[in-house]
Amino acid sequence: METLAVTGGRVLRPDGVVRADVLVDREAGEILSVEQGVAGEADETLAADDGLVIPGLVNAHCHMAMSLLRGYAAEKPLQAWLTEEVGPVEATFEAADVRAGTELALVELIRSGVTAVSDMYFETAAVADAVAQSGLRARLGFGIVTVTKDEAGAQADVDESLRVARKLDGAADGRIRTAVMPHSLTSVGEPYLAEAAERSAAAGRPLHFHANETVGEVEPVVTDHDQRPIAYADELGLLRDSYVAHAVHVDDSEVELLADRDVGVAHCPAANAKLASGIAPVQQLREAGVTVGLGTDGPASNDNLDLFGEMRDAAMVGKLADGDAGAVPADAVVEMATAGGAELLGFDSGRVEAGANADLAVVDLDAPHLTPEHDLRSLLVYAARGSDVRHTVADGEVVMQDREVEPFDEQAVRERAQQRATAAVERASE
Amino acid sequence: METLAVTGGRVLRPDGVVRADVLVDREAGEILSVEQGVAGEADETLAADDGLVIPGLVNAHCHMAMSLLRGYAAEKPLQAWLTEEVGPVEATFEAADVRAGTELALVELIRSGVTAVSDMYFETAAVADAVAQSGLRARLGFGIVTVTKDEAGAQADVDESLRVARKLDGAADGRIRTAVMPHSLTSVGEPYLAEAAERSAAAGRPLHFHANETVGEVEPVVTDHDQRPIAYADELGLLRDSYVAHAVHVDDSEVELLADRDVGVAHCPAANAKLASGIAPVQQLREAGVTVGLGTDGPASNDNLDLFGEMRDAAMVGKLADGDAGAVPADAVVEMATAGGAELLGFDSGRVEAGANADLAVVDLDAPHLTPEHDLRSLLVYAARGSDVRHTVADGEVVMQDREVEPFDEQAVRERAQQRATAAVERASE
Repeated sequence: METLAVTGGRVLRPDGVVRADVLVDREAGEILSVEQGVAGEADETLAADDGLVIPGLVNAHCHMAMSLLRGYAAEKPLQAWLTEEVGPVEATFEAADVRAGTELALVELIRSGVTAVSDMYFETAAVADAVAQSGLRARLGFGIVTVTKDEAGAQADVDESLRVARKLDGAADGRIRTAVMPHSLTSVGEPYLAEAAERSAAAGRPLHFHANETVGEVEPVVTDHDQRPIAYADELGLLRDSYVAHAVHVDDSEVELLADRDVGVAHCPAANAKLASGIAPVQQLREAGVTVGLGTDGPASNDNLDLFGEMRDAAMVGKLADGDAGAVPADAVVEMATAGGAELLGFDSGRVEAGANADLAVVDLDAPHLTPEHDLRSLLVYAARGSDVRHTVADGEVVMQDREVEPFDEQAVRERAQQRATAAVERASE
Repeated sequence: METLAVTGGRVLRPDGVVRADVLVDREAGEILSVEQGVAGEADETLAADDGLVIPGLVNAHCHMAMSLLRGYAAEKPLQAWLTEEVGPVEATFEAADVRAGTELALVELIRSGVTAVSDMYFETAAVADAVAQSGLRARLGFGIVTVTKDEAGAQADVDESLRVARKLDGAADGRIRTAVMPHSLTSVGEPYLAEAAERSAAAGRPLHFHANETVGEVEPVVTDHDQRPIAYADELGLLRDSYVAHAVHVDDSEVELLADRDVGVAHCPAANAKLASGIAPVQQLREAGVTVGLGTDGPASNDNLDLFGEMRDAAMVGKLADGDAGAVPADAVVEMATAGGAELLGFDSGRVEAGANADLAVVDLDAPHLTPEHDLRSLLVYAARGSDVRHTVADGEVVMQDREVEPFDEQAVRERAQQRATAAVERASE
């Protein structure tokens, strides 16, 4: 057994903060113990002095390759943004573009202490290759969109999502898991939604889709099917082993249904604000017993992948939505960004405890904006930034040490992304 | 004449981005020219290679010393937060505490590219001493609060605000300017508001106060005076040469009145969210012709002083407030954080142009989260962080070079702040 010790720091636990070393089984990617004095036994050590060891953050909803379009599009609402701005460029993306954009996103995730990500995109093999190289964990899927396609094209999308979910599951030594991912209840036709539900169940794969992101996504379902979208999804069998993104415009009955069906929600406060979609009722969802994780959504509607920023956004808009300064407090936000997201993705991560996956980050507390120290969770949510992360460990491997990203040549990734992004925009405008 | 050249970067101008050096007269603290090839003449150079030279950011509303209470208080609405949480600790602050907290805040401001700040607090001489040391520009004032005091105490507050406004104006070679600062329309009694208005006019000093921050601040004015707070302020003579903080709950007539009286608004989106106060109608204010700046408010209700975060917050909540993804766009936000704030504070800053104050920051674009480059303003607002600032120049002097803060011993400032904060909390709980 080869071991890694994270030494000299304090460790954020659900019940408080303890001064402890963290001993990790690198091969199993598992935490062996969290206590003082275990460092001596380790083959390798990582200094966490003056730092806070936190669970690796979980980005529960992303489209990583869209990093190529960061800052590209004009500030428009979701539908116009997708069809007029982003879509035409994405339509030109080849596998190498998706790989380049996903690598750029992974570098950014690692640099902000994220160790697991949920990703819905196309050219999923390229996404998986980049994830394999990154050392991170991921729940990946091919996003099915049928409303813009003929019958053969629609069927091909469903087939591809199933093929990907079967083929890539367990890849990268088990770091990659998959889901069947119909894009949304309005971008996928009813028979294909039903088919995706049925075939994902047969294949034993979970489901992930966008739900109730905008009013414009809710209204057609209510008009056409005379029921709320979440009830519609339930009727189609989509609320089985699934987690949804957004859930901005959900009524009380839908909150209850999500709770009853044990369907988690990936809350994406920044994207929902930037596209003026609205604010998800996170306080209500959590009180109803729904597991909530945090997602950045694609980097083009955010426009970064810093989950610390997303924590801050979640706390801020949660208070605005409820008109209650006590809503969505810091401890709830930390839980969402760690254990909540891990539960959605189905990884035993999100906690720095013996037996859990060795996914963690070390936050450097030695900074003016993190001084003085009254309440560490409050500092993490409201004052810290991804740039305060000193080390990132995923699956027992050090993927960033002293802000040096190990699995990628950062400069080469950035140059490739810039070239690919520029070329794609040029192709789209031809 | 001693000169400084900021070389090799690109410069953000109101009409776009140009590749240029910036030549500065250090003694006059003034920009001499912005063009390529002027670097050779300079006595000192500052490398901005691969960077973007932006106007120094302006924090248009702050209570800097409250950095000592960052992350201290529970998440409560404004009034309860002030009286139950923050107030009891602030009541124990002595001049040395205010100095320590202000220094900590100034270090943080410098590190995130801020070159001018508006500050309302007490022990104002200590605030001014810290600002003098920092090299930044500031508009300072003593905050008058009368409703918690007897007549003698109330009168002493008004006298002190006037004394401070007279005595400190022009300090630190003119970098420090002052204003008379009655705290708000509900925390200062009517005769004292009227007196502050009259005496500030006689002294030729501007006014700064909190206005319409919460519903709880609006209702008593409407009940007691049968008019909206901004009209009430106008009647008392408070809308003369003044800028207000917040303006969250303003109706159409108040927006018009602010525009008519040329009263600027310091928008504080983060504090207004964290205290669940609401969202100021920034798009409407700007369309009505009101000059809007950006403020962090005190670091205890934010909880940091990163104006890049505030830009992002302003863009995000502006869209949520209007339900319009095109509201409060990136270019408007950059303008608010630079020229808008400078106009409120009365400094000829906020633009990198010959003749303007030499207040600027160099943003390092060489980062994964700022890649690819499609739109620089969008990157600045949505993706950049204070930690991306490489150099900060205020009044022609380099106050941060390669992230080393020059005017302060950062470690000593942090230690002093921690000690002072801990001791104050202990005193308050005795």
